[in-house]
Amino acid sequence: MLNKNFDLLKREYIFPIIEKKLEDLLKSVPKSEVVNLGIGDVALPLSPSVAKAIASACYEMTRPETLRGYGPSAGYPFLRQEIAQNEYSKLQIQANEIFISDGINTDITAIQELFAPGLKIAIPDPTYPAYLDSNIIAGRAHDIHLLPCTKETGFVPAVPTEHFDLIFLVSPSNPTGVAMNRIQLKEWIDYARREKAIIFFDAAYAAFINSAEVPHSIFEIPGAHEVAIEFRSFSKSAGFTGIRCSYTVISKHLKVDSGDKKVSLKDLWNKRQNIKYNGLAYPIQRGAEATYSESGKQETKSQVLYYLAQAKKLKAGLIAQGFECYGGEDSPYIWWKTPNNLGSWEFFDLLLEKCHIVAVPGEGFGNCGKGYIRLSAFTTEEKVNQALNNIQALSHLCDLV
Amino acid sequence: MLNKNFDLLKREYIFPIIEKKLEDLLKSVPKSEVVNLGIGDVALPLSPSVAKAIASACYEMTRPETLRGYGPSAGYPFLRQEIAQNEYSKLQIQANEIFISDGINTDITAIQELFAPGLKIAIPDPTYPAYLDSNIIAGRAHDIHLLPCTKETGFVPAVPTEHFDLIFLVSPSNPTGVAMNRIQLKEWIDYARREKAIIFFDAAYAAFINSAEVPHSIFEIPGAHEVAIEFRSFSKSAGFTGIRCSYTVISKHLKVDSGDKKVSLKDLWNKRQNIKYNGLAYPIQRGAEATYSESGKQETKSQVLYYLAQAKKLKAGLIAQGFECYGGEDSPYIWWKTPNNLGSWEFFDLLLEKCHIVAVPGEGFGNCGKGYIRLSAFTTEEKVNQALNNIQALSHLCDLV
Repeated sequence: MLNKNFDLLKREYIFPIIEKKLEDLLKSVPKSEVVNLGIGDVALPLSPSVAKAIASACYEMTRPETLRGYGPSAGYPFLRQEIAQNEYSKLQIQANEIFISDGINTDITAIQELFAPGLKIAIPDPTYPAYLDSNIIAGRAHDIHLLPCTKETGFVPAVPTEHFDLIFLVSPSNPTGVAMNRIQLKEWIDYARREKAIIFFDAAYAAFINSAEVPHSIFEIPGAHEVAIEFRSFSKSAGFTGIRCSYTVISKHLKVDSGDKKVSLKDLWNKRQNIKYNGLAYPIQRGAEATYSESGKQETKSQVLYYLAQAKKLKAGLIAQGFECYGGEDSPYIWWKTPNNLGSWEFFDLLLEKCHIVAVPGEGFGNCGKGYIRLSAFTTEEKVNQALNNIQALSHLCDLV
Repeated sequence: MLNKNFDLLKREYIFPIIEKKLEDLLKSVPKSEVVNLGIGDVALPLSPSVAKAIASACYEMTRPETLRGYGPSAGYPFLRQEIAQNEYSKLQIQANEIFISDGINTDITAIQELFAPGLKIAIPDPTYPAYLDSNIIAGRAHDIHLLPCTKETGFVPAVPTEHFDLIFLVSPSNPTGVAMNRIQLKEWIDYARREKAIIFFDAAYAAFINSAEVPHSIFEIPGAHEVAIEFRSFSKSAGFTGIRCSYTVISKHLKVDSGDKKVSLKDLWNKRQNIKYNGLAYPIQRGAEATYSESGKQETKSQVLYYLAQAKKLKAGLIAQGFECYGGEDSPYIWWKTPNNLGSWEFFDLLLEKCHIVAVPGEGFGNCGKGYIRLSAFTTEEKVNQALNNIQALSHLCDLV
């Protein structure tokens, strides 16, 4: 009677294990001495402009003349237009190609419902666990191929020689913190056009992009409109992890051959959303809109810059101490090669017990994450300083292992 | 490449058609003269206690010491506990058996993912369209059996003689507005236990129940914990259609044979949610919590009573004019038999054009809805009076058809 695919979920859920180890540590170490660079959650408070907008939308709803009930499942036009104008004005994306939702996770796992069984799926390794797990639940376990993202590939997936139908890409990458440049993305778009494949492009960390050669949107690449779906979120760009607002962008040019007709994926997604989703809370949409106001832009931009500064400092500090680190330029994440070829859990334990630093073992994101750990720079300057001080002793510690 | 099941969605989407007809009317009739008793959306403003709680939670998030990022995917303990205590204190349901989400629609369509293909599905006719459509998308089109809810069955589904695996029940019913009593529900629970079936019990309108013989929760029925999942929402009980908060209740006693082991559906749902959902916005959960404060309870209760008073008045007024009506006792919906055996669209047009009343044609909810229309009492007293006045002329009009 049950969906047997759940039995195929083999992955060990690392965050509960990390939580448990942290709990144990806190029995003997005061919380203030622990530096949590683990889960990629925001550390700076919500922008006041956003809070004000949400609050004001709620009060609107307490008055009969401005009450709002059910909203459109795709989101309110005011927010879709604001996103189109601020994020896509030069990229030929219109408001009606933008669909509001409560999280990239929700949409990037739900969108698989639009596709037939038996397709060939490509997913980076290491990667955000939900891509893999949601495909397994959907019965695609045996159709998944992992694309290694190692030192040899520059920590981004290389374009394969074989055919795939659906490809998950994330840039800047979670967990490696490395972003794909224009040339690399163009290769993928060309591949998808050649192979009639579709790319699910997770751009959750787009706001952190600095490098001139890294596109902020997949739609900067010619031809992407016909083969790629972009997923973006306010979670990391505006500290919305506890507020929940994201959007999925599907161009009207993305059409799929289906028997004798061409089907617009945008229309199909819209149909799916109309049936299975009632839209995001009105006040939250007003909050997201407020990130584009003058004050909202300043407040959220300064948060992103602050996190990037922490990433830079942390990475520089580690490199100065002789460690090997990647990412952290266009991303809040640093991908740290474990010293002395320690296993990622071994190094995790060492960092936790001896330096009181919480990280995430790379193998929690896939086999190719073995021998690495992820540090998150969603933290404060004080904590970064504390972390670097605590790590000072580490080269000595590694010798002792 | 595409999920072909979307091609099997045959239903005509009635709300866009209704919207179009209303638009046409508004070209010649001022908006104030139209009475919209169509879509079941709230008409009274949001409770001030709720707005205050959401606003205050947002301001909390603007301070470093009270910032909240990612929350638990199942919802915050404070809300789960409040629901357990206020809704289920005598029904052996604990906080950890309650899962918070953004809408019954989302959960009751997503929960189908826990089950194997090829199961026999039973769905009432007429019914809320998403049950049917989501099952069709999931590839169950040929496994669906409709349970007629007609005058003969008292507008609720009768327990069948054949076997079904998954059964969708909604009480008080949308669209008929009729609730199932204790005896009828016990028959369904006994059936499910006998057949090892699972009941998805949609209790979106539970807050409107008046009649002593109608249970407020399926868990009032002995044995329900082992076979039923209850879906409830703040949408209609506290005017949350634009705020979005619901909950799904799965007892730890609901276990399903799977090969040589018994699987807890609660645990399986929790696993699914952890993978595919990041939880509801923290401020919204504080808003839902506030509906259980002293002032919140009063404010939301008075709204429910107000809508029920409108339903009562509307129904009594129609019956006094010689019409045949059902529902409206434990529900905001009235199920109106079309006079002179008019088709439901015919009667819809007549009501719209001659009485300036927007209703919903019963056949939009299924074949057994033919010959009926649904009126929603989510409206104001002024509008009910206006509707009854406008209908005065209708018996004469019907003669003219």
